[in-house]
Amino acid sequence: MYSLKEFKEIFDPVLEKFLDKRLEEFSVNTSDSFIKDFVFYSKDLVMAGGKRIRPYIAYVMYSAMGGKDTENAIKLFISLEIFHSFALMHDDIMDKADTRHGVSTIHSYVLKKLRESERSADIENVSKAQAILVGDLFFSWVMEIFLGNKNFPVENITKAQDYFYKMVDEVVLGQMIDIDITTRENAIEKLISEKTRLKTSRYTFVRPMQIGAHLADPKNDMDDFCENLGTKLGIAFQMQDDLLDIIGDPKILEKSILRDIADRQHTFFTNYIFEKGTKEQKEKLTGYFGKELNEEEQKEVIKIFIESGAVEQGKKLILEELEDAKKIISDSSLGQEYKNICFDLVKIMEERQS
Amino acid sequence: MYSLKEFKEIFDPVLEKFLDKRLEEFSVNTSDSFIKDFVFYSKDLVMAGGKRIRPYIAYVMYSAMGGKDTENAIKLFISLEIFHSFALMHDDIMDKADTRHGVSTIHSYVLKKLRESERSADIENVSKAQAILVGDLFFSWVMEIFLGNKNFPVENITKAQDYFYKMVDEVVLGQMIDIDITTRENAIEKLISEKTRLKTSRYTFVRPMQIGAHLADPKNDMDDFCENLGTKLGIAFQMQDDLLDIIGDPKILEKSILRDIADRQHTFFTNYIFEKGTKEQKEKLTGYFGKELNEEEQKEVIKIFIESGAVEQGKKLILEELEDAKKIISDSSLGQEYKNICFDLVKIMEERQS
Repeated sequence: MYSLKEFKEIFDPVLEKFLDKRLEEFSVNTSDSFIKDFVFYSKDLVMAGGKRIRPYIAYVMYSAMGGKDTENAIKLFISLEIFHSFALMHDDIMDKADTRHGVSTIHSYVLKKLRESERSADIENVSKAQAILVGDLFFSWVMEIFLGNKNFPVENITKAQDYFYKMVDEVVLGQMIDIDITTRENAIEKLISEKTRLKTSRYTFVRPMQIGAHLADPKNDMDDFCENLGTKLGIAFQMQDDLLDIIGDPKILEKSILRDIADRQHTFFTNYIFEKGTKEQKEKLTGYFGKELNEEEQKEVIKIFIESGAVEQGKKLILEELEDAKKIISDSSLGQEYKNICFDLVKIMEERQS
Repeated sequence: MYSLKEFKEIFDPVLEKFLDKRLEEFSVNTSDSFIKDFVFYSKDLVMAGGKRIRPYIAYVMYSAMGGKDTENAIKLFISLEIFHSFALMHDDIMDKADTRHGVSTIHSYVLKKLRESERSADIENVSKAQAILVGDLFFSWVMEIFLGNKNFPVENITKAQDYFYKMVDEVVLGQMIDIDITTRENAIEKLISEKTRLKTSRYTFVRPMQIGAHLADPKNDMDDFCENLGTKLGIAFQMQDDLLDIIGDPKILEKSILRDIADRQHTFFTNYIFEKGTKEQKEKLTGYFGKELNEEEQKEVIKIFIESGAVEQGKKLILEELEDAKKIISDSSLGQEYKNICFDLVKIMEERQS
């Protein structure tokens, strides 16, 4: 079994080779060098960073279900990373994010190039349009990865693909809820919990686990195990995300913190203040919601999250979710060797800093 | 054989049933009634109009290749219409179009609803974000249509799917070129011709024909025929589109005219003025490029297109392309019955008013 770090080292060259081939085939049909340039840039963006956690989780369960053809399984699991790249490209447009992993997002790259070549027209809109299309392109390649694969029995591929499409619907809905929450004045706990279930538990854990498991054994009965374990890990992962947005190190995260405040994202931590904070803490947070904060204001907000007890309580709940996850693994029907593989996954979560 | 009109009458209920089912399954996973509302609205938009020309063309070639299981073929060909809906949803965001087929586009519908419910945040951006996601959802359903279909041999489905994904790459690239052209000061004939080939010839004709042909007979050798005929029909179709944008009836078109001028689209007709118009005609057109025109200005622009001879020359070229198309059909190896089916397709083009 590879560790997450080892996996990335094996996975990334496969991913890069795939992108090289597809980008080459795609751009041969035009003489437009401006388009070729930003289309090829998409590879730089994808290769610039990312933990490859979703393909890794699929690989873990593929192995835990006895799958041995890791080389070909990885070729299929790049679909998860290509899909994730697609989702991030569209997310970055929605969030108006200029950088990811320390490099330009597609739309901000196109905008810069349009400015350099002194183009006319509404170039802000044009750059977003091109970024939407690069995303669409990546999405279409996801399907082709499954279509072209002849290394597994049709039944295995079909089952894996089936869970893949469930995942797509779920993450789209999760993102819709996520955006809808930002337009609401009050945190709606039910919607936050739906969002976390769809956008984190299902997307990052449950479905990748099921995809891996079914690719190895299309008749496996581990769906409930994946759902239960993935849900716990997902809740912990989302809370870690939200916590890192408050007390994480921007250098390790490769992004600025307190984005949730600026983007009007209701989280466990903002909810905690709105419900259990003092009158002053609530008013301060309400005033900062939806604003880009300066250094002074950032310090003040972080102080509120700490002094209210939100950070402490969040940390406690994360640990509880991870303890529950370990219990689910212990109680499962998996053999000890495969249990250990799953325990390693929890360990990655426990040590997570970005 | 059904006429295009008859086909739409049979096709639309199948399309509607598919959307009902998928929308129901999708929205069961959330309690967010705001999201449910605009997601279900997407069906109203799709059913509000559209000629269903792409699935029809697939059906024509499916029949011309001896395909008999029309009922199940149509279930597969809805993938072309779902994909087209996806493409239009994303196009409408890029073009900032408020209506299509006389009803609200997704983003303008969401914006209206956000205003009604007095939501905070950057609601213009939020409405576009939700529309991007509805489009993504439709795109994901395309894959599922192929995945779930067990009514044809795997070889037939795989071949049809293969051409489908070629089409997706091509239309995405065509749209990229289309947008890139709008940022350029001068018409670049090579790029316009690449755009027409990818976005109209391949997308509306060649690939749907090949999808239909390979679903009926995965070993057919009609690829060149499809390419040649589809290219001719595509060029004629694109020029008709551009011509209708000048002299078409807005009521029959269900949209306003002279959009190409407002959207900075270089076409055969604008190119004709820029190359062969008088100095005054060139200056007038340059001045209007990228502007929403009032009634007076619209009349003036139409006059320029007529008096320069652009309209006359365009009409002549359209007829020439369609004559070429007929010759390609006559010279083909198809039996007379199937030649007649293809001639009917040309006839639809000859009589086209929207």
